[in-house]
Amino acid sequence: MSTEAQYHHDIALSTRVRLARNVENLFFPNRMSREMAEEAIISLSAPLLRAAGDGFTLMRLDQGNHLEARALVERHLISPELANSQRTRGVVLSVDERLSIMLCEEDHLRIQSFGSGLCLENCLREALRIDDLIGGAVAYAFDEHLGFLTACPTNLGTGLRASVMLHLPALTEAGLMRDIVAAVGKMGLAARGLYGEGSEAYGALYQMSNQITLGQNEEEIIGHVSNVALRVVDRERTLRARIKKSQTYEYEDRVWRAMGILKHARRLPGEEGMRLLSDLRWGVSMGDLDLPLSLLDELLEGIQPGVLTLGAMRPLRAAERDIARANYVRERLQGLH
Amino acid sequence: MSTEAQYHHDIALSTRVRLARNVENLFFPNRMSREMAEEAIISLSAPLLRAAGDGFTLMRLDQGNHLEARALVERHLISPELANSQRTRGVVLSVDERLSIMLCEEDHLRIQSFGSGLCLENCLREALRIDDLIGGAVAYAFDEHLGFLTACPTNLGTGLRASVMLHLPALTEAGLMRDIVAAVGKMGLAARGLYGEGSEAYGALYQMSNQITLGQNEEEIIGHVSNVALRVVDRERTLRARIKKSQTYEYEDRVWRAMGILKHARRLPGEEGMRLLSDLRWGVSMGDLDLPLSLLDELLEGIQPGVLTLGAMRPLRAAERDIARANYVRERLQGLH
Repeated sequence: MSTEAQYHHDIALSTRVRLARNVENLFFPNRMSREMAEEAIISLSAPLLRAAGDGFTLMRLDQGNHLEARALVERHLISPELANSQRTRGVVLSVDERLSIMLCEEDHLRIQSFGSGLCLENCLREALRIDDLIGGAVAYAFDEHLGFLTACPTNLGTGLRASVMLHLPALTEAGLMRDIVAAVGKMGLAARGLYGEGSEAYGALYQMSNQITLGQNEEEIIGHVSNVALRVVDRERTLRARIKKSQTYEYEDRVWRAMGILKHARRLPGEEGMRLLSDLRWGVSMGDLDLPLSLLDELLEGIQPGVLTLGAMRPLRAAERDIARANYVRERLQGLH
Repeated sequence: MSTEAQYHHDIALSTRVRLARNVENLFFPNRMSREMAEEAIISLSAPLLRAAGDGFTLMRLDQGNHLEARALVERHLISPELANSQRTRGVVLSVDERLSIMLCEEDHLRIQSFGSGLCLENCLREALRIDDLIGGAVAYAFDEHLGFLTACPTNLGTGLRASVMLHLPALTEAGLMRDIVAAVGKMGLAARGLYGEGSEAYGALYQMSNQITLGQNEEEIIGHVSNVALRVVDRERTLRARIKKSQTYEYEDRVWRAMGILKHARRLPGEEGMRLLSDLRWGVSMGDLDLPLSLLDELLEGIQPGVLTLGAMRPLRAAERDIARANYVRERLQGLH
């Protein structure tokens, strides 16, 4: 797929592939005793911790490290469920944070592989590599007809969820996201705001992922997700070009004001920060502001409350967080452009 | 008056002293024929145009130069009445624009002297110098009991109006301006927003001037205006210090955001421009941003619609003006701070 090879960084922030796996003859995590979960975490992480190359570390999430867990959620490395559960659980992270294996979440294993831009094939390849690594050490629960067995039937079969994170400021601005979400839904993909509650997508960031895991093989699933994502990417790109041409000053004013405020504000509430970084990313993606896109993607994660709090290494009140957020963004943009 | 010697530039933008004069045995302008007005303009401007030093030029306002007239109003060099009148009229301006003598406005002569900061004594001295210059060439209408005779009885006596332009963002922000206007009124001064209609004072700029011209001599009038202005200046200064101390981040965020937006916006509506320049002037006056205060005062005039239009040398639609305003401010702030 030659178009995917270009990664589409202007619109696609990142890709995630997740595989759900369970161990044969072992209760699903919600029925495990504390001792059984302890044992599963040890035995499932062992093949990873032994393997060379990825620099895996095991992090236990039931040891009072709530701030770390919250930050990992905001950075999309672990699920809110894993962070908030009261059960014994853990996560294995590679040193480059491109691999995250959740242990005793809903399933025994949730193997996640991340990449920048639209890169489903790469992510699948990496996830399958880890799948083989663990699968060589333990026997997975597998049924010839149903495929991999999972705690929730919606994950049966491949246990695969392929997601792409798209930045859609033009479609959002034009009020077209409701239609897009519906259209994508008809094609078997779920689309939801990446940050924010319900239909509010702060920063115009959307995640699109397959809903069907059964009846198709892995390559078919990611091929389909990729095709749908590329159609949305195309619509966003066309609309961006049209807006820039027909509403030049509105567009330029918007992206430059974002730059001005982000470089100067002394207090930055979270929602405003997301909105302004979204505007700035739009301008950068159009080549109109000379900043690295990767910096924008980093800032969009870095301004999240938990990540900021973790950086401060102490609990922050909301007002303190707005100051910390403004300082963080200002320092990162200092001297640029 | 030693405190006035400091000019109080942090809060006082400028000072104006105006003297109303009329020529003996000549109809007031509203009763003059076109020919009589022509003749008066020539004879009253003659002593000025002959005098060396000030570099006076005569500008006729009944010759289709509406754009120029509007810009002069916005820069407070002439009155809206002079600009908008259908009658034969003119203005003599010194090359440094610190002197403006309106001819055939409501009175035959309105001698105006301007200065930066709070400088009533200097302005009075200059206005009286011009008064002497013209008074040496023509006979003024003067009554031993009533003093100088004027078209409107509210100007009888000295014909003096002394005004100071104050920047009062802290008092405005604290919602205290209604009280200030009332208190100042009881002390015989009128206070009104410098720009904007009615009680809306865009940019927190207020003009305060004496209402009584009769029964006091010139020095007494300006002494009183000066005293009242200094009391308002003191209150504003105290409140600014208190806000900076108790709401440090709010204050800093406000002035720095103003800087960020003004340096980056591509469209700048007039009201927003006034508000942001007011915020920025506040920060500069507190020593927190390293810009010359005089630049801010210049920008506050320069962003007015008529001044911008004159600069463009063609009529501008509102949307074009917002772009021109943003460009003008951005260029002036370029490379600063």
